[in-house]
Amino acid sequence: MPDFAAPLQRLIDEFRRLPGIGQKSAQRLAFHVLRTSRDDASRLASALLDVKDHLGLCAECNNISDGELCPYCRDPHRDQTQICVVEEPHNILPIETTRTFSGRYHVLHGSISPLRGVGPEQLKIKGLLDRIGNSEIQEIILATNPTVEGEATAVYLSRLLKPLGMRVTRIAMGIPVGSDLEFADEVTMSKSLENRREM
Amino acid sequence: MPDFAAPLQRLIDEFRRLPGIGQKSAQRLAFHVLRTSRDDASRLASALLDVKDHLGLCAECNNISDGELCPYCRDPHRDQTQICVVEEPHNILPIETTRTFSGRYHVLHGSISPLRGVGPEQLKIKGLLDRIGNSEIQEIILATNPTVEGEATAVYLSRLLKPLGMRVTRIAMGIPVGSDLEFADEVTMSKSLENRREM
Repeated sequence: MPDFAAPLQRLIDEFRRLPGIGQKSAQRLAFHVLRTSRDDASRLASALLDVKDHLGLCAECNNISDGELCPYCRDPHRDQTQICVVEEPHNILPIETTRTFSGRYHVLHGSISPLRGVGPEQLKIKGLLDRIGNSEIQEIILATNPTVEGEATAVYLSRLLKPLGMRVTRIAMGIPVGSDLEFADEVTMSKSLENRREM
Repeated sequence: MPDFAAPLQRLIDEFRRLPGIGQKSAQRLAFHVLRTSRDDASRLASALLDVKDHLGLCAECNNISDGELCPYCRDPHRDQTQICVVEEPHNILPIETTRTFSGRYHVLHGSISPLRGVGPEQLKIKGLLDRIGNSEIQEIILATNPTVEGEATAVYLSRLLKPLGMRVTRIAMGIPVGSDLEFADEVTMSKSLENRREM
């Protein structure tokens, strides 16, 4: 191994701990930091610490928030009758980008996974039940991931919520728009057939 | 655009400024930092600042160094008769990885590029001439990149150094080992023919 100066090696090691950053990328990033101004490095360093020091979870929906409530729960213009349930805070982003949903969210912070020892009691489900009890919610949209764990979580929640008189829906699974049937795996293809709609 | 909490948005913006990190990667990294411990974030933050505060350039070869001399210039076992000239400190790494070169380095910190307004006077060439004047150096290996700029720099240095009685060599350009002629571009292919060797 070549000899990097100790602080440089340490920075490379720290970059490598980030997801999707391998040895070569870590080196490229570290050499980039070397070339930039101290101000740039220091802004990134303080942004890292601010995120840990000034962010918490929204008291209502468990989304990441810098105040008691997150921007979606704070916004009085959003639809109070729909809650979209997602696994993680970053799952909100792709939904918001569509601009077609104006309700609120609920973040579970995980999904049911017996293999990884995660049961319903480890998820933030109680808060969801409290919200349903206290308000005018009419529909719960289950937007957990289309994986075994996300599906199990959706089934569990649906069994829990339907008896409360809620309309419980699940996001559609099927062939991605703009794709070709040729590239669809068999599970997606069969979901797509199963969920076919009248035209 | 979705509303991220301000500190989170700031961290995403800072990550985006790094090379090769787009919007999606920056978000993934920022959400990763959110999930990790404060210690992890703080280690990365301080590694960033340490690199700016505790690293300088080697007084001899301009490589990145945490002392007056870099590890290669400090090491008495390295061959004193050869100097390998590279454009940037990170160019040393691929050469060291081969374990076939045991001489010392000289880092120019750039290459001659009239388009970007970089002339020979902006490169660290004077130090190289001083080193040659003071020591037992017999060969200068020009390992600038095989680009227009790297080639121009190599030609410039070779004209400067040959009159001093140095052996001046250039790293070989040709078809990469393990590749197929089919994939070679025409410039590489013609270099490869031009630099053919007797068998």
